[in-house]
Amino acid sequence: MVGKVLAAVAIGEKQTELQEFEMPEISPEEAILRVEIVGICGTDVSYYRKNHEPRILGHHVIGYIEKIGDLASKRWGLSVGDRVAMEEYIPCGQCEACRTGAYRSCIFTDPRSGSIRYGTVPIAHKPSLWGGFSQYMYLHPNSVLHKMAKHVPAVEAALTLPLANGFEWMCIEGDAKPGKIVAIQGPGQQGLACGLAAKAAGAEVIMIGRSSSIRRLELAKEIGIDHIINISNEDLLSRVNDITSGKMVDVVLDVTSRGTTPVTSSLEIAKKGGTVLLGAYKYQNIPEFNIDLVIKNTLNIKGVRGHSYQSVKMATEFIASGRFPLSKLNSHNYRLDQVDQALKTAGGEGEPSPLLVTVSP
Amino acid sequence: MVGKVLAAVAIGEKQTELQEFEMPEISPEEAILRVEIVGICGTDVSYYRKNHEPRILGHHVIGYIEKIGDLASKRWGLSVGDRVAMEEYIPCGQCEACRTGAYRSCIFTDPRSGSIRYGTVPIAHKPSLWGGFSQYMYLHPNSVLHKMAKHVPAVEAALTLPLANGFEWMCIEGDAKPGKIVAIQGPGQQGLACGLAAKAAGAEVIMIGRSSSIRRLELAKEIGIDHIINISNEDLLSRVNDITSGKMVDVVLDVTSRGTTPVTSSLEIAKKGGTVLLGAYKYQNIPEFNIDLVIKNTLNIKGVRGHSYQSVKMATEFIASGRFPLSKLNSHNYRLDQVDQALKTAGGEGEPSPLLVTVSP
Amino acid sequence: MVGKVLAAVAIGEKQTELQEFEMPEISPEEAILRVEIVGICGTDVSYYRKNHEPRILGHHVIGYIEKIGDLASKRWGLSVGDRVAMEEYIPCGQCEACRTGAYRSCIFTDPRSGSIRYGTVPIAHKPSLWGGFSQYMYLHPNSVLHKMAKHVPAVEAALTLPLANGFEWMCIEGDAKPGKIVAIQGPGQQGLACGLAAKAAGAEVIMIGRSSSIRRLELAKEIGIDHIINISNEDLLSRVNDITSGKMVDVVLDVTSRGTTPVTSSLEIAKKGGTVLLGAYKYQNIPEFNIDLVIKNTLNIKGVRGHSYQSVKMATEFIASGRFPLSKLNSHNYRLDQVDQALKTAGGEGEPSPLLVTVSP
Amino acid sequence: MVGKVLAAVAIGEKQTELQEFEMPEISPEEAILRVEIVGICGTDVSYYRKNHEPRILGHHVIGYIEKIGDLASKRWGLSVGDRVAMEEYIPCGQCEACRTGAYRSCIFTDPRSGSIRYGTVPIAHKPSLWGGFSQYMYLHPNSVLHKMAKHVPAVEAALTLPLANGFEWMCIEGDAKPGKIVAIQGPGQQGLACGLAAKAAGAEVIMIGRSSSIRRLELAKEIGIDHIINISNEDLLSRVNDITSGKMVDVVLDVTSRGTTPVTSSLEIAKKGGTVLLGAYKYQNIPEFNIDLVIKNTLNIKGVRGHSYQSVKMATEFIASGRFPLSKLNSHNYRLDQVDQALKTAGGEGEPSPLLVTVSP
Repeated sequence: MVGKVLAAVAIGEKQTELQEFEMPEISPEEAILRVEIVGICGTDVSYYRKNHEPRILGHHVIGYIEKIGDLASKRWGLSVGDRVAMEEYIPCGQCEACRTGAYRSCIFTDPRSGSIRYGTVPIAHKPSLWGGFSQYMYLHPNSVLHKMAKHVPAVEAALTLPLANGFEWMCIEGDAKPGKIVAIQGPGQQGLACGLAAKAAGAEVIMIGRSSSIRRLELAKEIGIDHIINISNEDLLSRVNDITSGKMVDVVLDVTSRGTTPVTSSLEIAKKGGTVLLGAYKYQNIPEFNIDLVIKNTLNIKGVRGHSYQSVKMATEFIASGRFPLSKLNSHNYRLDQVDQALKTAGGEGEPSPLLVTVSP
Repeated sequence: MVGKVLAAVAIGEKQTELQEFEMPEISPEEAILRVEIVGICGTDVSYYRKNHEPRILGHHVIGYIEKIGDLASKRWGLSVGDRVAMEEYIPCGQCEACRTGAYRSCIFTDPRSGSIRYGTVPIAHKPSLWGGFSQYMYLHPNSVLHKMAKHVPAVEAALTLPLANGFEWMCIEGDAKPGKIVAIQGPGQQGLACGLAAKAAGAEVIMIGRSSSIRRLELAKEIGIDHIINISNEDLLSRVNDITSGKMVDVVLDVTSRGTTPVTSSLEIAKKGGTVLLGAYKYQNIPEFNIDLVIKNTLNIKGVRGHSYQSVKMATEFIASGRFPLSKLNSHNYRLDQVDQALKTAGGEGEPSPLLVTVSP
Repeated sequence: MVGKVLAAVAIGEKQTELQEFEMPEISPEEAILRVEIVGICGTDVSYYRKNHEPRILGHHVIGYIEKIGDLASKRWGLSVGDRVAMEEYIPCGQCEACRTGAYRSCIFTDPRSGSIRYGTVPIAHKPSLWGGFSQYMYLHPNSVLHKMAKHVPAVEAALTLPLANGFEWMCIEGDAKPGKIVAIQGPGQQGLACGLAAKAAGAEVIMIGRSSSIRRLELAKEIGIDHIINISNEDLLSRVNDITSGKMVDVVLDVTSRGTTPVTSSLEIAKKGGTVLLGAYKYQNIPEFNIDLVIKNTLNIKGVRGHSYQSVKMATEFIASGRFPLSKLNSHNYRLDQVDQALKTAGGEGEPSPLLVTVSP
Repeated sequence: MVGKVLAAVAIGEKQTELQEFEMPEISPEEAILRVEIVGICGTDVSYYRKNHEPRILGHHVIGYIEKIGDLASKRWGLSVGDRVAMEEYIPCGQCEACRTGAYRSCIFTDPRSGSIRYGTVPIAHKPSLWGGFSQYMYLHPNSVLHKMAKHVPAVEAALTLPLANGFEWMCIEGDAKPGKIVAIQGPGQQGLACGLAAKAAGAEVIMIGRSSSIRRLELAKEIGIDHIINISNEDLLSRVNDITSGKMVDVVLDVTSRGTTPVTSSLEIAKKGGTVLLGAYKYQNIPEFNIDLVIKNTLNIKGVRGHSYQSVKMATEFIASGRFPLSKLNSHNYRLDQVDQALKTAGGEGEPSPLLVTVSP
C-alpha cells in the first residue's frame, strides 16, 4: 500500500488534472478500495462539462479491498483482497427510504452519512477520494458493495451498474420473463444492457434505433437480441406488428437521449394492458401525449431510475456466469492520465458510437 | 310470469317509447331476469343522445331470476327467486382474455356469444330484451351474475357496478389499504363510489372538487371521506401538503369529466413512487404533460377501465355488510314510463348535481 | 378425412384394444383434431392400471385441426391445418374459477360442458373420441388450444404440458429468475421439464436424485442444469451449502414419487424466507414435519398442480424458440398398435429410467 | 431531566429489583427516551422465567424524546418532546437484509451496532438502559422509531407492536382486504390485534377459541370481530362451512400457544388456494401433517415473524385514527415498583385471561 494516491481531479469545465493525495486513515467502520476499472456514465460527462468545484469523477467502479476496518468487514462480509463492485449511493441506513429497502431514494443530505454519492463529492470534503478516477478510493461506512468473481474480465465487471439498471427496469419493474416481448428504444450502453437483462430473464427482445446508431443495432444482433428495427428505414408500427404477429409489445422502454417521439411511439406499440417504462429525461413537455390511449389500452407507464440491492446482485451473478458476450460492448479503454480523452470520447466528441468507455487507474 | 314484457325503447336521439315484447323462450343455458332497479350510467346518457337504432338502454341492473335453464342454474349456482346483480359484459369465455380472467377485454364480437353488452344491443337482435329499462331481461348463457343479499335496499344494490369499479381501481389497481393516502379528483357517482371502496379497504381519503360540486363534496364528508378540497377556493398543492404532513399522496385517481388540468395536478400531488390512475377520457392531448416529473418521482400512471369478477364480488359483499350509508348517494328514482326524464336528469338537464339516478320498472 | 377412426381403447386393467369409431359430426362450436403425437403422463399409467370402464387414454396431445366449426374458429383463432397443443382441461367458462382465470379449478361437473378431462371420459359418453391414443379426437366447444409452430419436432412438442407445469410452478408460483437458486428433487420427466423452465427464466438450478436415477442426473447436466447432487453418495445439506456459498436455496421443488424424506430435506435446504413447492402426492402423513423450522425461517410452502393459460403459452413459445435440447428427453416412441407396451414402459415395467414415452397414432 | 435513572432489573429467575443508573451521555447519533408505558410481551415472560444475567426487560415501549443528538434528529426526523413508538430491533443498516428492507432478519451480531434487541441486553453492556422497565432508555444510533400522535391514550399506544404484527401478517403476508374471509385461532393479545388489523383492512373475521378463553372470545365480538367459534362446544368445520356459505376461509392464522391440532385444523378450514399463516412455535413435530391436502387444495403455508417498517407505520396511523376500541384490550396496568407482579400476571399466574398488561414507569 502506497502512502500517496494519484487521482484525476476535474478542476473546471472540461478539464482534469492529476493530483496527489494522502492515503486516508480509516476507522473500524471504513475501508480503502484499490480501483481496478471505472466505466464512464452519462452523468460523469454532464458533471465534466459543467464542473465548478474540484472533484474526482467516476462512479461505476470495480476494485479490490486494500484495507478494511473490523466492523466494516463484518457488516459487508468482505476482507482485504476481495474484489468488489461498488454502488454509487451512500445511503444513511436509518431513514424511512433506507428502512424499506429503497435506499436509492434516501432523502438524507448531511455530508457525514447522507445521500452524498461517489463521483460527485468535492475534494474539499475530506478525505477527498470520493471518485473512481483515482488509484484508491475512500469507502464510507455506509457504502454498498457487492462481491465480484475474480475470473471476470475487468471490462465486463465495469458493466455492473448499467446491467443492474437493466435488471431493475426490465425484470423487477417490467417483469420481463419467458413469454413476454420487450422493446427497447435507444441502443446505447444502457439500452443494450437492458436488452441483455431481458434476454437473461427469458424474454424476446426488439431493439429500436436509427441509421445513426446502425453499428450499435448490429451489435445488438451479435449479442443475442432477437430483432432490430431501424426506424430511419422501417415503419415502426408495422414492423412490430409483424414481429409479434399482431400481439404488440408487453414492455417498452425508452432510453433515447432526446426527442418526444419515442415517448408517443412507445405508447403506440404497447399491447393492451402493456407497460411503458420511461428511463430518459426529455427536458420538455410531451405536447402530443395521448392520455385517452392510456385509458383505452389500460397501459401502465412508469418512470424508472437507478438500481436496488437485488438488481446489482442479479447483475454481478449474471456477469460471473459468463453467459453473455459482454466484452463486445467494450469500445475504449484509457489510462488515468487520459481521463480527459475518456470523458470526451464517452461524450461523443470523438469516434462515433462509443459504448463502454473505461478508465483503468 | 306474464306473457308480455313492457320496455322503454330508445327510438331516436333523446327519445324513448314504451313497447311490448313477447316473453322469450329459454334453452337450458339461458334465463329470464325480472328487473327490480336500474342505475343510470354516463354511457347510457351518451347512447341516449346519439341513438340511431332502436334498443333498450340500462345496464346497471339488479333483479330476480324469473326462469332459469338447468345448465345455467348449475354453472351460475342460481335458482328461481334469487336476487342478482348483473355485469354488463357478455364474454365469450373461450378466448385468451377470457381464459386469463380478463373477460372485460374479451375481443370476440360474434353476436351469438361475443362481446355484445347489455344495454347496447339493438332490439332487432333477438330476443330484443338486452337492456334494463324493461320489466324483464333475457339472460344470455355467457352472462356474469352475482348473488345480491335480499335485505339490501334497492337503491344501494343499484350501486354495485360503480362500487365494483371503485374496488377494481382503488384496491386491485391502486392497492389502497391501511397506511395509504388516496386522493380522488371528481366527486360524482363514480368518484364517491371509489372513495367508499378506498375507505372500506382502510385507506385515508381526500376528495377534490370545485364550488360547482359543493353539494357532492359535502356529501363526501357525510359518507365518511376524511378530507375534502374545493379547488375553487383552496390551493390544491398546499392543502395536500398540509393534510399529508408533507408526505403527499400514495394513489391519485382522476375521474373528472373534462379538462386536462386534473391530469397534470394529479402528477404533482402524488408522492415519490406514487400511483396516478386515469379513469376519464379527455378527448384531447395533454400538452403540458411533464414526463420528467414522472421519471424524477418514479411515478406509476395507469389507465383504468371497468371491473373484474373479484371486484364485483367485493362490491356485493360490501353492500350486503351495510357498513356505509350508500342510500345517501341516491338522488332520483323514476318509473318505467319516466325513462326520458331519468336519462335527462342523469345527463344534467334538470336539477343540479344528480348522483344516483335510478329507474324501477 | 377418413370416415372411420381407429383408437386404442383401455378395456380393463392393463389392457387396450384397437377399436373403430365413426368420425363425429361437428356443430359450429366444435372441431376434429388429427392426432400427431401423445406424450404419456403418470396419470395415464394410473388409469391404465385400475381401469374399469372402456375409455381412450392419452392427454398430452399435439395434432392438426382436421375440421372446425365457424364459431370455434373465431373463438380459438384457428383454422383447418393449424398445428396445436391441447390442454387436458375442458372448463365450463362460466363459473367463478373460470371467470377469474383459474379454469384448472373449474368445479363444474356436468358432462355436457363440465370439468370432464381429455384422456379420462369413457367411450360410452358420445362422441367417444376423448383420448389421444386415437387417430382423431373430438374437440369440445370449451377446449383450450394453443398454436404450435410447425418447425418443432413432434417429440419436443409432446413436452408442452410438462413444460407448462414447469413454467407454472417455477416461474409463476416460484418466481424463478436471474439471481435465484432453484433446487429440484426428482429428475424424472416433470423434474427435468421444471429444470428447463427455471433455466429459461434465468435461474441457477440444482437437480437432486439418487444412484437409481443416475442416467437422468447425467442427462440433467447435458441439457444445461448447473449442478447435480446424488444423495446416495453425497450429503445433501453440505453440498447445497457449498454450491450456494452458504446462502442456501431460494426455491425448492419436490417431485419425487414417494417417501417423506424429500419433504423434510426440502425444508432444510431452503434459505430464510425461501419457498418450498410440493408437487407430488405422498399418500401418507409427514410425521417429522418441523413446523417450528417453517416459522423460524419464515418459509413459504405451496402445493402446486397443473398449468394455466399463461404457462402453456410460455411453454409453446419456449419450445418454438429452439433454445433447449428437448429432444434429449425423448426415450421411447410407439405406434398406435403398441399402446400397451408404451404404457408399460412409461410405468417402469421395461427398460430403466424412461423419460418421455410417446405414441404416434 | 434527572441525573439518575430508576429501573427494574431482572436479577435472577422470576425476580426484579429497582436499581439506580447514571443518565448516559449521548453522541450526535444517539438519544434518550423518557419511558411513558411498556406493554408486556410473551418474550418478556420467557426471559423473566429463565433469566441468568442482570438486564432490564420490556420492549413494547412508548415514550418521549428527552434528549437527542443532531444527527439522530435529522435521520429520524424527531425532536425533543416528540412522542414515539419504538421497535425492539437495532438493525445494523448495512447488511443484505437491512439493504433490502428486511431488517428484522439482520444477521449482524456485533454488540456495537448489531442485532441486539431492546429488552434483552444485559446491564453489563453499557450504557445499561436497554429495557423499557425504566424511567429512561438509551436510544442507539440504529434505533427504529415512529412518531405517535399525542392524543392517543397510553394503553392504546402500548399496542403498537402487536398491531404491527397484525398488519404485517394479515395485510402484508395474508393480503386481507374487502371480500376476503380471515380466521384466527387463538384470541390472546396477538390474535385480537390481528383481528383488528384484518377488520381495518376490510376483511370479514372469524375468531376461534375454547371455553377457557370465553372472556376473550366475547371481547372479540365487542371490538368488532364478525364471528366467534368456541370449539369446546362447536364443530369447527361445520361452523366455518355455515359462516362462509361453504366457501371456506381465505386466510387462516394460528397463534395458539401450544398443541398441534390448530395446525391441522387450519389446513382443513382453508379454501382451495387459501393461505395458512403459522405464527406460534409448537416445540414439537406435527405427526398428522397432511401434505396431500396441501397439494390437493394448492394451499400456501407461511411462517410469520415480527414486523416491518411499513406495518409499524400502519399500526401507528391506525391507532391515531381512533377507529377501534383498543382500550378494551387493556386489562392490567402497574407501576415501576410492581414489575414482578406485572410479569406474573402477564404469564398467567394471577387473574385468568389477562390481555394487555402494561407498566408505566
